[in-house]
Amino acid sequence: MPFAKRLDNVETSAIRELFKLLGKPGIISLAGGFPDSAMFDVTGLSQASQRALQEEPGGALQYGATEGFEPLRTQLAQFMAGKGIDVRPDGLVVTTGSQQALDLLGKTLIDPGDKVIVEGPTFLATIQCFRLYGADLVSAPVDEHGVMVDVLEQQIIEHKPKFIYLIPTFGNPSGATLSRERRIKVLELAARHQVLVVEDDPYGDLYFGEPPPPSLMALSQQVPASREWLVYCGSMSKVLSPGLRVGWMVAPPALLQKAVMCKQFSDAHTSTFAQATAAQYLKAGRMPATLDHVRTVYAERARAMGQALARELGDAVAFTQPRGGLFFWARLTGAGGKVKDAGEFAKRAIEQGVAFVPGAPFFAKDPDHSTFRLSFATADVQKIEEAIARLGRAV
Amino acid sequence: MPFAKRLDNVETSAIRELFKLLGKPGIISLAGGFPDSAMFDVTGLSQASQRALQEEPGGALQYGATEGFEPLRTQLAQFMAGKGIDVRPDGLVVTTGSQQALDLLGKTLIDPGDKVIVEGPTFLATIQCFRLYGADLVSAPVDEHGVMVDVLEQQIIEHKPKFIYLIPTFGNPSGATLSRERRIKVLELAARHQVLVVEDDPYGDLYFGEPPPPSLMALSQQVPASREWLVYCGSMSKVLSPGLRVGWMVAPPALLQKAVMCKQFSDAHTSTFAQATAAQYLKAGRMPATLDHVRTVYAERARAMGQALARELGDAVAFTQPRGGLFFWARLTGAGGKVKDAGEFAKRAIEQGVAFVPGAPFFAKDPDHSTFRLSFATADVQKIEEAIARLGRAV
Repeated sequence: MPFAKRLDNVETSAIRELFKLLGKPGIISLAGGFPDSAMFDVTGLSQASQRALQEEPGGALQYGATEGFEPLRTQLAQFMAGKGIDVRPDGLVVTTGSQQALDLLGKTLIDPGDKVIVEGPTFLATIQCFRLYGADLVSAPVDEHGVMVDVLEQQIIEHKPKFIYLIPTFGNPSGATLSRERRIKVLELAARHQVLVVEDDPYGDLYFGEPPPPSLMALSQQVPASREWLVYCGSMSKVLSPGLRVGWMVAPPALLQKAVMCKQFSDAHTSTFAQATAAQYLKAGRMPATLDHVRTVYAERARAMGQALARELGDAVAFTQPRGGLFFWARLTGAGGKVKDAGEFAKRAIEQGVAFVPGAPFFAKDPDHSTFRLSFATADVQKIEEAIARLGRAV
Repeated sequence: MPFAKRLDNVETSAIRELFKLLGKPGIISLAGGFPDSAMFDVTGLSQASQRALQEEPGGALQYGATEGFEPLRTQLAQFMAGKGIDVRPDGLVVTTGSQQALDLLGKTLIDPGDKVIVEGPTFLATIQCFRLYGADLVSAPVDEHGVMVDVLEQQIIEHKPKFIYLIPTFGNPSGATLSRERRIKVLELAARHQVLVVEDDPYGDLYFGEPPPPSLMALSQQVPASREWLVYCGSMSKVLSPGLRVGWMVAPPALLQKAVMCKQFSDAHTSTFAQATAAQYLKAGRMPATLDHVRTVYAERARAMGQALARELGDAVAFTQPRGGLFFWARLTGAGGKVKDAGEFAKRAIEQGVAFVPGAPFFAKDPDHSTFRLSFATADVQKIEEAIARLGRAV
């Protein structure tokens, strides 16, 4: 059967291959990109879904508007207002997880051969999603303060990209957070070069101490003409439940309209049952307590992982302690002749009973083979300490 | 903002424009393509969702496999077995409504310029979905016994299509059902010409008297080498609830694998919350009673609509009484100098307080402007009789 040529642009994910090994008994996994199931507010979600079915069974079970279930759009606009973002309910589209926002951006904007700038490293499924639409990805370097804006400007001038995709806050996999100063610079670049910037923000609410700088979209009020070049993707997946598949996208009106048209032919609309449940959950006011809880638990795990890494691996690894999100991003230094290739390290780690993801696949171009990603989200403190001790033996 | 060229292939739907008029007070709508909310088994779905959250909160709220939630795949395989289709749970992928199955077929198979054969008329969102991927659609004529297979074979030979898309049972909008004899012929064509046939079957369970002929996929056992050229798309939307967005696709292994890869980057997976709810619902054994109920109610409405059409519009319209599904497909005959253009008729009908959809947009090529579609699903018998009386005044 002859498949479409666009499929030639993607390979089977190296990570998927790795995941096949996870079934081995006794393996502690630091490989996943998902939140801890034990933290889901099952009671709250159960009440919310019951209320949705009692109060609005038609709305929750019938076909709905492609743009999204109205009560949820209203709740999401309020949720965004709490984060300093001014958006009306009709300024956003509800998406089937924020993965669908990426797909709609690809479908709406990318012609084969178009350049798109992403961070190096960036979210793996973004790379594959955009490549399926034929994007030629340009990789913008990232340091501990996020994307390096001077290089980014040179790349904008050289490549005239269709758009720029960033995870500015607690990036996946980098864990890095774009500084406030650089955020302003990115907004100025968007306005000056009239280039669309997509801000993917699934982790922004998962901070451990001080909140991160405001989102690009919140800061856009300070940079004239920048808002019209901004897209914001939000998600309930990391803070409430990925299984709902409820994300959303804020975009300039012309783009939003095209994205809604594309969504109509992608899945008609996001599950109204899930949307009505999320709307009732937000309306019930349970989100602040849920956020407090997940922040506290993840902060403790991140602290434990950082201390264990320093203790067990010493100068064999370099990393910046994350201030939020779900991930450590680390680099094998090769100090003392120790292993420097993260693929090799991952194999040895599996033998010792720990799984994690090597960093190379997260780079659209020029992979750094010494990097790797550790998730502290799903193992508890005791398991994390045991896992890092095993990594110490593997290194 | 320069959008992708693929967006030039679709126009704003004429139907969407019409839908804007539906808000007028007193309008009876026969325009929708959706089931009656009053028939949703709210109690059963409420119990199913509660059970899903109690028994498997992790599974129902966490990220899940792109292929689908295992307990639902198992239930769907059993559901299909009850319809004479032999498929293993890993032979199907759960999709976000069957609309997503269409999108995944487009993404997986269609290169710009590829020919795809669809029925004339066919489902509007199929036309737009495939065109977004650049398909050049060929329209195969349909009579009351479904697609005309002799013409279809000529079109296969002439156009060498990437695939053929059919709604063989209670078609939307045609209401037509492909005869058993023609089904066998279609399967022979698939095997002989090695051309993929997509069977979209959202309405097959909604029969009013005798069940329709078995699905193409069920009959494929009788036609050697035909099964490997068959795709089957199923949906919970018309029989249980569209708001769950739970559909599924059975396909040959190589195609299924590519579709799953594309789905990974489209929405990661279908809502596990909705999937776990659907799985519990099927497991609880409520589906047979639900199907009995909807069949009885829709049969009564279809009968009432047919009688009213004959009484109120006489020889001004021609139609075949549907034996299942949600739709009447009718043609203005122009007898006695009455209106023959369905667009004009739709405008007059709105003035009289009835909305329906003219048939022209359902044709990928060569629209028949005398046709129109009436849904009998959402208005009760009394409203249907009033609506058709108004159509009698409009004609």
